[in-house]
Amino acid sequence: MPPLGLRRGRAWAALLGQLLRPPRAVCAGPVRPHSQFAEAVLTSQLKPYQEKSNFILKTPKGTRDFSPQQMVVREKILDIIVSCFKRHGAKGLDTPAFELKEMLTEKYGEDSGLIYDLKDQGGELLSLRYDLTVPFARYMAMNKLKKMKRYHVGKVWRRESPTIAQGRYREFCQCDFDIAGDFDPMIPDAECLKIICEILTGLQLGDFLIKVNDRRILDGMFATCGVPESKFRAICSSIDKLDKISWKDVRHEMVAEKGLAPEVADRIGDYVQCHGGLSLVEQMFQDPRLCQSKQALEGLGDLKLLFEYLTLFGIAEKIRFDLSLARGLDYYTGVVYEAVLLQAPAPAEEEPLSVGSVAAGGRYDGLVGMFNPKGHKVPCVGLSIGVERIFSIVEQRMKTSGEKIRTTETQVFVATPQKNFLQERLKLIAELWDAGIKVAIKREHIVAEIQKRLLQS
Amino acid sequence: MPPLGLRRGRAWAALLGQLLRPPRAVCAGPVRPHSQFAEAVLTSQLKPYQEKSNFILKTPKGTRDFSPQQMVVREKILDIIVSCFKRHGAKGLDTPAFELKEMLTEKYGEDSGLIYDLKDQGGELLSLRYDLTVPFARYMAMNKLKKMKRYHVGKVWRRESPTIAQGRYREFCQCDFDIAGDFDPMIPDAECLKIICEILTGLQLGDFLIKVNDRRILDGMFATCGVPESKFRAICSSIDKLDKISWKDVRHEMVAEKGLAPEVADRIGDYVQCHGGLSLVEQMFQDPRLCQSKQALEGLGDLKLLFEYLTLFGIAEKIRFDLSLARGLDYYTGVVYEAVLLQAPAPAEEEPLSVGSVAAGGRYDGLVGMFNPKGHKVPCVGLSIGVERIFSIVEQRMKTSGEKIRTTETQVFVATPQKNFLQERLKLIAELWDAGIKVAIKREHIVAEIQKRLLQS
Repeated sequence: MPPLGLRRGRAWAALLGQLLRPPRAVCAGPVRPHSQFAEAVLTSQLKPYQEKSNFILKTPKGTRDFSPQQMVVREKILDIIVSCFKRHGAKGLDTPAFELKEMLTEKYGEDSGLIYDLKDQGGELLSLRYDLTVPFARYMAMNKLKKMKRYHVGKVWRRESPTIAQGRYREFCQCDFDIAGDFDPMIPDAECLKIICEILTGLQLGDFLIKVNDRRILDGMFATCGVPESKFRAICSSIDKLDKISWKDVRHEMVAEKGLAPEVADRIGDYVQCHGGLSLVEQMFQDPRLCQSKQALEGLGDLKLLFEYLTLFGIAEKIRFDLSLARGLDYYTGVVYEAVLLQAPAPAEEEPLSVGSVAAGGRYDGLVGMFNPKGHKVPCVGLSIGVERIFSIVEQRMKTSGEKIRTTETQVFVATPQKNFLQERLKLIAELWDAGIKVAIKREHIVAEIQKRLLQS
Repeated sequence: MPPLGLRRGRAWAALLGQLLRPPRAVCAGPVRPHSQFAEAVLTSQLKPYQEKSNFILKTPKGTRDFSPQQMVVREKILDIIVSCFKRHGAKGLDTPAFELKEMLTEKYGEDSGLIYDLKDQGGELLSLRYDLTVPFARYMAMNKLKKMKRYHVGKVWRRESPTIAQGRYREFCQCDFDIAGDFDPMIPDAECLKIICEILTGLQLGDFLIKVNDRRILDGMFATCGVPESKFRAICSSIDKLDKISWKDVRHEMVAEKGLAPEVADRIGDYVQCHGGLSLVEQMFQDPRLCQSKQALEGLGDLKLLFEYLTLFGIAEKIRFDLSLARGLDYYTGVVYEAVLLQAPAPAEEEPLSVGSVAAGGRYDGLVGMFNPKGHKVPCVGLSIGVERIFSIVEQRMKTSGEKIRTTETQVFVATPQKNFLQERLKLIAELWDAGIKVAIKREHIVAEIQKRLLQS
């Protein structure tokens, strides 16, 4: 069998020269159809993604198939994201879709109920991964690694009530970038924010903003406002809802459901409605109540340094210090952040898409230590890009613009105007494949169609 | 914020010209380290993939992480496979990791017990997908598609007793290519075999052979040998084990466990020990017993046509008609095939790797119809590449050759010989990132190391 590639002795060079741009038709018979007809044939072959049909034949709740058209869009998005991760020196990593159930316990706080467990069919108890961060920390600890900059693109699963209109699914793809190891303070954190900016800019999603806060500032605020320590994480979860529900409703949840004293809630309210830039950080340094907390001062000091680096990176104007940003996950220990789009990129006449945050992350210095028998810690900071939401936006943008998506890369059709020449066609096709050219076999009736159009023209 | 890409007004052109091949060091301070030292620093950073450490901290049985080194190898393999699928005009498709449990029932015969079920946490009953073929058929039926050429690369899960030494895992990646729809007989089947040949050749896995048979020939053989129809699939499963266990053991299983009459088993034995090329197909046409079966004659007729096309494609010498090839899955209806490597590509002094089949597939004309309320059929044929086994071979080959694997694509290090210049470094790095250049920040102690070596040299 001849080797693949362009090593064939025959005169493919001339043909290859013509193949820089697809698609064309190569005719084994006497009639040479015009390439526009071949184009028309191709377009008619791109079947539209039809609506899902009946009640039994479906994908599980909160999941979906990706049609060839959607795959093209998804791959374009992932390419931009992964290129950025690689530009920042990250290595690839992959972990299994499921973990031992015990690996995931006590990592996600109130959200743990959303984990998909596998049925006990004998052997180990397993759960589908809930994010890519905990498997990364498990990998670091398991392999006794002290340092790593890695990216991971993969699916995760959460049993959330799916609001598909908002781009929320039970199965969704995450693109994670994390830096583990001891580095100069806040430099990896600043790099994570820089990466988010590069990706959101590269994807041309319109203007965006990254809210930044620090868990230590939150904890210091809770402590100095009079929240009992046992309620820190529960109150944190309530605060985290401030981007979805009003302060009034959050306050009600904290007081009525979580038993916080009303005056404590009001003190918190004064803080969590603040947001600004470096000047707000400096203002908080002067806040007499917050200054009583050593933790809060540490957090504020780090944020100040962070803003210095963000200025050097040229992205300080994209970052907002926001005392209401909490992030739901239990494992964060320092700076946390969340990127939101400021406006939907859809045209003015369309309903603006509500997509929530499109990227988020933070510092989790304790997670690797939770997997280490001796508790040895490895400081980590990372980010996660929410691809499904970005996908909804890009897909809608393409639909609005009427942009045609090619789902195949075919360069050549081999066809004959009669039913004959099958042997010649197959031989020719095999030679083109062996030469690395993208070829599709055309069926008789399509060939007849080309011929008919040629006769009409 | 400046746009990404190479649009910056500054004089990057000269720098870019030097960056065609990584890695180099760009110095913000006065000393310009020699690039060989930067290379040495890079190499020392590639931590080896250490052995897994203890009994609790592990991945689930039969699963594994892919380290950065392994990811590089895996991506190279997948690139070759996907390029071939695209060359043959396939579109991409993705489906959820799990399906409604009922979608998977009655599709896999004796192997159904290996399906991973999800725990019933309220709502739908779900199972992890067992292959990519059944989800593809479900997708075709659900979207009422009559024709599609698609590829799908994704993980599947089977609760097999893992023999990891042989490259068998409970979580593994499949690369599937399928052609659905009405086409001229045996042309899509021949294309599938061509694709397997192109991929195995492209991956340079050494010599290989593709065994081919037809379910109708098997069924005709069973009928004319006297196997009761109710035992066809069970006997099929026994025959399928002939590549792993001897004829004697298969015969024992059929007679003692599956209740077949010994003389019937012996009649089957005469056939399943036959293999050859087109001449064997023609010989079987003359076989007085087999000729009594209309089904077998249909299968033989199709195989004859298939061999004609395989000759035109230049791959007939890679194909062997093998009457023992059965394939375990229930859904096959016509031609079936399985590719095996004829020799391990490892050097002579190494133990040859036993990897079993590396690709397989066949025709399944009834599967889409099983999902259609009116039973409308869509004929399909496809193939699946077993990436894990190929991965074991390529990984061992690279280990043996001592080939170094780069896990990052860094083009530039920015470092200073003193602790100063942090601000200058960060500004320079951000500009390089914005210009699309792959840059890594280096820490002080590494810079000191470079300086030390420079002073020594």
